[in-house]
Amino acid sequence: MTKITLAHGNGGRLMRRLIEDVFAKTLGNPVLDAHADAASLPAMQGELMMTVDGFTVQPLEFPGGDIGSLAVHGTVNDLAVSGARPSYLALSAIIEEGLDLAQLERIVSSMARAALDSGVQIACGDTKVVPRGQGSGLYLTTTGIGVRRGGIHLSMDRIRHGDKLLVSGPVGDHGTAVMLAREQFGMSGDVQSDAASVVDLCEALLDLSGLRFMRDPTRGGLTSVLHEIHQATGLGVRVRQQAIPIRDPVNALCEILGYDPMYLACEGRVVAVIANEQADEALVRWQALPSGSASSIIGETTNEVDRVILDTALGGERVLEELEDEPLPRIC
Amino acid sequence: MTKITLAHGNGGRLMRRLIEDVFAKTLGNPVLDAHADAASLPAMQGELMMTVDGFTVQPLEFPGGDIGSLAVHGTVNDLAVSGARPSYLALSAIIEEGLDLAQLERIVSSMARAALDSGVQIACGDTKVVPRGQGSGLYLTTTGIGVRRGGIHLSMDRIRHGDKLLVSGPVGDHGTAVMLAREQFGMSGDVQSDAASVVDLCEALLDLSGLRFMRDPTRGGLTSVLHEIHQATGLGVRVRQQAIPIRDPVNALCEILGYDPMYLACEGRVVAVIANEQADEALVRWQALPSGSASSIIGETTNEVDRVILDTALGGERVLEELEDEPLPRIC
Repeated sequence: MTKITLAHGNGGRLMRRLIEDVFAKTLGNPVLDAHADAASLPAMQGELMMTVDGFTVQPLEFPGGDIGSLAVHGTVNDLAVSGARPSYLALSAIIEEGLDLAQLERIVSSMARAALDSGVQIACGDTKVVPRGQGSGLYLTTTGIGVRRGGIHLSMDRIRHGDKLLVSGPVGDHGTAVMLAREQFGMSGDVQSDAASVVDLCEALLDLSGLRFMRDPTRGGLTSVLHEIHQATGLGVRVRQQAIPIRDPVNALCEILGYDPMYLACEGRVVAVIANEQADEALVRWQALPSGSASSIIGETTNEVDRVILDTALGGERVLEELEDEPLPRIC
Repeated sequence: MTKITLAHGNGGRLMRRLIEDVFAKTLGNPVLDAHADAASLPAMQGELMMTVDGFTVQPLEFPGGDIGSLAVHGTVNDLAVSGARPSYLALSAIIEEGLDLAQLERIVSSMARAALDSGVQIACGDTKVVPRGQGSGLYLTTTGIGVRRGGIHLSMDRIRHGDKLLVSGPVGDHGTAVMLAREQFGMSGDVQSDAASVVDLCEALLDLSGLRFMRDPTRGGLTSVLHEIHQATGLGVRVRQQAIPIRDPVNALCEILGYDPMYLACEGRVVAVIANEQADEALVRWQALPSGSASSIIGETTNEVDRVILDTALGGERVLEELEDEPLPRIC
C-alpha cells in the first residue's frame, strides 16, 4: 500500500502500523510511547512555558524545508523567543486520504532531524485521516513545552521610547521560496526557505539586561511584528528601508509577483527589541553567529509618531499599514 | 462579516480580531495571553504528563456535544485515565474558509464550558484558515498537560492473567449519535453522545492497589481497547455479551445501519483493568457516581486463549477481530 487510506485512521490494524512503522520508528526516543494515552515527562525544574502552532503550508515540500521541519522549528522558536529552553513537543497530524506514504515518511524524517537539531524530543502524537477533498495532504500541529531561563521575563510591556529594533537576517525568504515552489507561478529561482531553529540567536542575547522582547516574524512578516509592538505599547515604530536585509532575488521576485517582502513570512529569523545602549553589543553577538551574520539594527521605537513608518531608500516616508485583506498567497 | 474568510488567517487585522473577540474573550483565563508567543504556566509540582489529540468529527455539532466539547474532554480524559490531574490545554484550530462565525462562536463557548467542568485552563492557542474545499469546517487539536498523582503508575505491563475488565457505562452512544446527526442517514433518534469528562471516574479508583490500567475507548470502540490489551500483554481477553452495557436504541439503530456497537466510539467511558479481588470494590465505587451508574464487570484477561473472545448471549463464542478496513463512518 503506497497511499494513505481512510482505514489508516480508524483505530484498527492499519492505523497501528502507520503509527508504529512511520511515526514511532522515526521519531522514537525514551519519552515517546506509542501505546500510552499520555507521556511521562522526566522531571522539569523551574517555570514551564507552553506554546502551540498549526501548520498548513502548501506545497508540503519546498526549497529549504517542508511542513515537518517547519512544524518543529516554528514551535521551538516560539519558546526560544520567549526566553525558554524548548524540551518536548506533542505532534498532531491530520492526513488527507490519498497522501503518498513515501512523502509522509520523508516529512516525518525531516521532523526527526529538526527535533535533533533543536534539542527537543517528540513526547506524544496523534494521527487522524480525513477523506479526500477535506484536507490538503497534511496538516500538522505542534505544541511545545520548555523551561523559562532563570530571571528572564521578556514582554512587550518592557519596551520603552528609544529602544532599538534588530532583525537577525534577511526577511521574506521563506514566503518567497514557498511561492516559487507552487506550480501555479510557473517560475523558479534560487531562493531557499530560512526555516531553522533560532535557539542560538535567542540564547546569545538572554543575559543582556536591556533585552525587552523577541519575536520570530512568521505570518504577516516583519511588518506584522512591528504592528504588534505598536499596538501593545502605544509607541510609534520607525524603521529604515536601507537597514532591512532583503536578498536581491527576493526583491526581484516580489517585484515581478507584486508582493512586498516586508509582509512575507520568515521561519528562522528573530526581531529583538533592546535598550539603545546595548543594541551594538547585541548586534556584535548576532553577527558572530552563522545564523546572524546578516543581522542589522533596523530602527527604533518612538513616541514622536503614532504609526509604523518606513524611511525609504529615496529619503521619503511610507506608512506600513497592518495587513487587512488577503494580499498574499497562504504560506504557513 | 458572518463567515470566516482567508483574511482571518493571514496575520493581519481580521485575524487579530478573530483571536481577540472569539477565542480570547470566550476562553480567557489568567494564563492565556493572546499576544504572547508562549504562555507561562504557574509552577506545577510533581511529574508532568502530556497528551495530544486531533478532532475531525463530522458534523461539527451533534446531540450531546460538538467538536469543541469533544476536544476538551478527549484530551482531559487521556490524562485522567493515565492517573494524572489535567491542568492546562493548548488549542490549535484549523478553520475552513466559509465557516459561519456564529457556529464557531457556539463551539468555542462549548469548549469554555467543558474546560470549566473539567477544571482545566486553555493556556495558549493558534488559528489557521484554509481555503474552501481543503477542510471540513473546523479541525481542532488539543494538547494537555497535567501532574501525575503521587505513586500512581498505571500501565498495560501491570496486567496479569485473571484480572477483571470493567466498563463505566454503555458503549457506542457517541458513535451512534454522530451517525444519526448526519443527514445522509435520513434517520433520527434519541441517542445522545456520551462525551463528558471521566476525571471523577478515574479518581474514584486511583487508591486501589490492584488497579492496573485504564483507557477511554474512543476510535475503534471497546473492541479496539481489548485488542490493545491483548497485543501488549500477550494475554487473551474474554468478555460476556450480556455484561456489556449497550442502550436499546443504540442496538436497534446499529442493527438497521449494519454497524457493531462494540466498535463504535465512546467519548465519556472508561475501561479499567483491575486485580480480581478488588473488582467488586471498584464496581461499587463507580456505581455510586452518576457517570458510573451503569458500570459493569464485563470480563477478564486469561492465558487460556490467545484471542479476544465474546461469549454471546446465546451461549456461543465469537472472536472479536481487530478493525482492519473502514467498516465505519468516520466519527472522531
